[in-house]
Amino acid sequence: MEKPTLPKGTRDFGPLAMSKRQYILDSIRTVFQRYGFAPLETPAMENLSVLTGKYGEEGDQLLFKVLNSGDFLKPVDEGLLRDKNSRGVTPAIAEKGLRYDLTVPFARYVVMNRHEITLPFRRYQMQPVWRADRPQKGRYREFYQCDADVVGTDSLLCEMDIILMVNEVFSKLSIPDYAIRINHRDVLAGIAAALNLTANEGSLYTVIDKLDKIGAEGVRKELSATGLDDRRMDQLFGILSAEGDNQEKLNFLKHTFDKTSAGKKGASDLKEVISLLTGYGIKEDHVEIDIALARGLSYYTGTIFEVNVNGVAVGSVSGGGRYDNLTQAFGSKEILSGVGISFGVDRIYDVMDELGLFPPGTESSSKVLICHVDDPSLRYGLGVLSALRKSGIPAEIYPDVARLRKQLDYANRKSIAYTIVIGPEETESGLLVIKDMASGNQQKQRLQDILQSLQP
Amino acid sequence: MEKPTLPKGTRDFGPLAMSKRQYILDSIRTVFQRYGFAPLETPAMENLSVLTGKYGEEGDQLLFKVLNSGDFLKPVDEGLLRDKNSRGVTPAIAEKGLRYDLTVPFARYVVMNRHEITLPFRRYQMQPVWRADRPQKGRYREFYQCDADVVGTDSLLCEMDIILMVNEVFSKLSIPDYAIRINHRDVLAGIAAALNLTANEGSLYTVIDKLDKIGAEGVRKELSATGLDDRRMDQLFGILSAEGDNQEKLNFLKHTFDKTSAGKKGASDLKEVISLLTGYGIKEDHVEIDIALARGLSYYTGTIFEVNVNGVAVGSVSGGGRYDNLTQAFGSKEILSGVGISFGVDRIYDVMDELGLFPPGTESSSKVLICHVDDPSLRYGLGVLSALRKSGIPAEIYPDVARLRKQLDYANRKSIAYTIVIGPEETESGLLVIKDMASGNQQKQRLQDILQSLQP
Repeated sequence: MEKPTLPKGTRDFGPLAMSKRQYILDSIRTVFQRYGFAPLETPAMENLSVLTGKYGEEGDQLLFKVLNSGDFLKPVDEGLLRDKNSRGVTPAIAEKGLRYDLTVPFARYVVMNRHEITLPFRRYQMQPVWRADRPQKGRYREFYQCDADVVGTDSLLCEMDIILMVNEVFSKLSIPDYAIRINHRDVLAGIAAALNLTANEGSLYTVIDKLDKIGAEGVRKELSATGLDDRRMDQLFGILSAEGDNQEKLNFLKHTFDKTSAGKKGASDLKEVISLLTGYGIKEDHVEIDIALARGLSYYTGTIFEVNVNGVAVGSVSGGGRYDNLTQAFGSKEILSGVGISFGVDRIYDVMDELGLFPPGTESSSKVLICHVDDPSLRYGLGVLSALRKSGIPAEIYPDVARLRKQLDYANRKSIAYTIVIGPEETESGLLVIKDMASGNQQKQRLQDILQSLQP
Repeated sequence: MEKPTLPKGTRDFGPLAMSKRQYILDSIRTVFQRYGFAPLETPAMENLSVLTGKYGEEGDQLLFKVLNSGDFLKPVDEGLLRDKNSRGVTPAIAEKGLRYDLTVPFARYVVMNRHEITLPFRRYQMQPVWRADRPQKGRYREFYQCDADVVGTDSLLCEMDIILMVNEVFSKLSIPDYAIRINHRDVLAGIAAALNLTANEGSLYTVIDKLDKIGAEGVRKELSATGLDDRRMDQLFGILSAEGDNQEKLNFLKHTFDKTSAGKKGASDLKEVISLLTGYGIKEDHVEIDIALARGLSYYTGTIFEVNVNGVAVGSVSGGGRYDNLTQAFGSKEILSGVGISFGVDRIYDVMDELGLFPPGTESSSKVLICHVDDPSLRYGLGVLSALRKSGIPAEIYPDVARLRKQLDYANRKSIAYTIVIGPEETESGLLVIKDMASGNQQKQRLQDILQSLQP
């Protein structure tokens, strides 16, 4: 048989990677909980009727579809099969698909459980999602998302909470230098209105969104192709390149949208968010109003955020925004405004790895290995093992009769911090030699003292 | 649009269920780590070449298959499509399937990473698996497994570790009354040999395995149909119904297998496991040798375990055993003996729910809700909120301007333990009224004292 392989774009996470990932996930979870968000999990598979049409046509193509069980070809139209019409056959042979993000399943959950849910509803969700994207460096077909959302209120206190959570997560992870860029869809709408471009808003946002990637020249070229004349182009860049601190940008926006109603709400929302942050007692240090921030997803209707780590070229590590119409896609008549943030674990992992931010000892394995030279020492070691574990100290005993060298080698290769070698002398005296494998230092101690000094 | 639905046999886990599940998962994870097991995660999707043929023909039918992306019908044989030959078409249109258990992906991981792994390799894995089973009460199409395995040693210390872990998990979860039934495939083989049934071992085990469900009469009937005569039937039941404590059963087995070589290893392994447990300093309280325990899965080759909670009719909540040939299915020439245990989270959940074992306050939401009567109190409340969270106390502020009654109602419906109502008096004096929502008791305190008394 051939050597087994993994599906393209998927990964195993071995012990070291897992420990680092758990460190990130635990940090995010702790913050979510401290901010009053409650956990939710939804199934990996959703009915395709739930998923389709929510992510644009491109998104629909990227959904992984699950083949119906049993004799799935039976109900399929013969003509479609004869023509090998894959697209036409799909709905007849696949009813379910894999989750593409956590937001749509969340909206589906809210609609299905509307009467049991207390609004405003604060939920977090940390689960993998799947996308049949072309795999490339840093882009996978299975990856974790960590989302927190509040629905059922349009209070800007929720925007504040989200910004505070980002700060707390990054502080917990010791990521020092990052920027939370913030903008508002209404600011963009205001710009479109000021330029008389309201018919074509969507594509304007899409092009603006590329500013980072293709630069001002590239954006000019693309907008030119859509028929934007030079006068309006200059006007646009005059707005996008507004400089200064947040206060100066707020003043600039207020001035710019003096006459149009479209941009006003955006400018005043941003002002209120900044003011709330100050009221909460934090400096706005990491928060930057970025008039050119657009974010691709079409469902945002209010504030939008994106977080980048400075000096690391991995793109944004977190992003989100406010939406007003998510549940309406599932037939809900009620308008439930919501706002959410999503942390990208894979990118945060890459950032932390690159900056060397994982604390030493993140790898979770035993702290102590008990070694033994004969059967009586092994049996004596079982008592020591039991005492260590009872004290909450992760420990194991080398399970086979083997040369001591092999046992110590095992400890070294698994980065086990301490070893206790037991032989006839130890079983008799009860005095144990504990060795720090990194420094080579060793000490003769009673078990009680060892337990005390290794206490987690 | 119609109301959205969930795929058959799948579930959402809302905040309360999730908190209880996390309580179980965290307890199991803590024990796994204390026993020196390191975490592993594998992708939800595996190549079907990895999964197929590992779970028997029935298992193959229960695999969820993922439709290839793009123009998947293109390479398919026209004849198969014309005949609507679903089974024949499947391999051409689906290369990937969803994980069916955690053991096969683990074996695949070991083979693929054999040179980076330090043996013996102790890993744990807690992830959902998917089976296209007919959904029914207690049986789902998506459910979590929590596995711990050691491979690369045939030391019975690993069996001991597994039994100790079961005890520690159940003690952590406060499940008092359970039995870890233990047997050995060689004991069953010894019985088959004693009865001259070695040609038909497999089906003997399958029938014995049903003893719990269909009773002695049922088993007699089924074995009769396979041609087992009355003499051997009585002999079989003479062995299966051996009574007494573990020591008596060990003596009985020793005596029974006095002459055959087949059962001897089984009997002596069981004896050693019991002896190790005693050496470790635990009574064998929950451990019961059960000669009739067979377990269905064909890959076990040594000890087998199953755990049942007494007095609760949910079947076994945990099970496992030793296997010698798992990696050979992936072309590995090396024989890597391993032993593992799997905890069934859904069943443990049902047991704990039925017995009322979840500790009060398992639901994770905010501990404190800050309420406010006007805008200045809201802004004052932000400082209080910040202080609470900084002290690690989960807290939130009611995000909208609303009547106090509505705010308190929100706290009650979300089982938030405490509220702090802020009005003009509080913002002026700095003395806050904290109310215990369950008892109705309230106290006037300074913020510092509140922080102290709510400290987690």
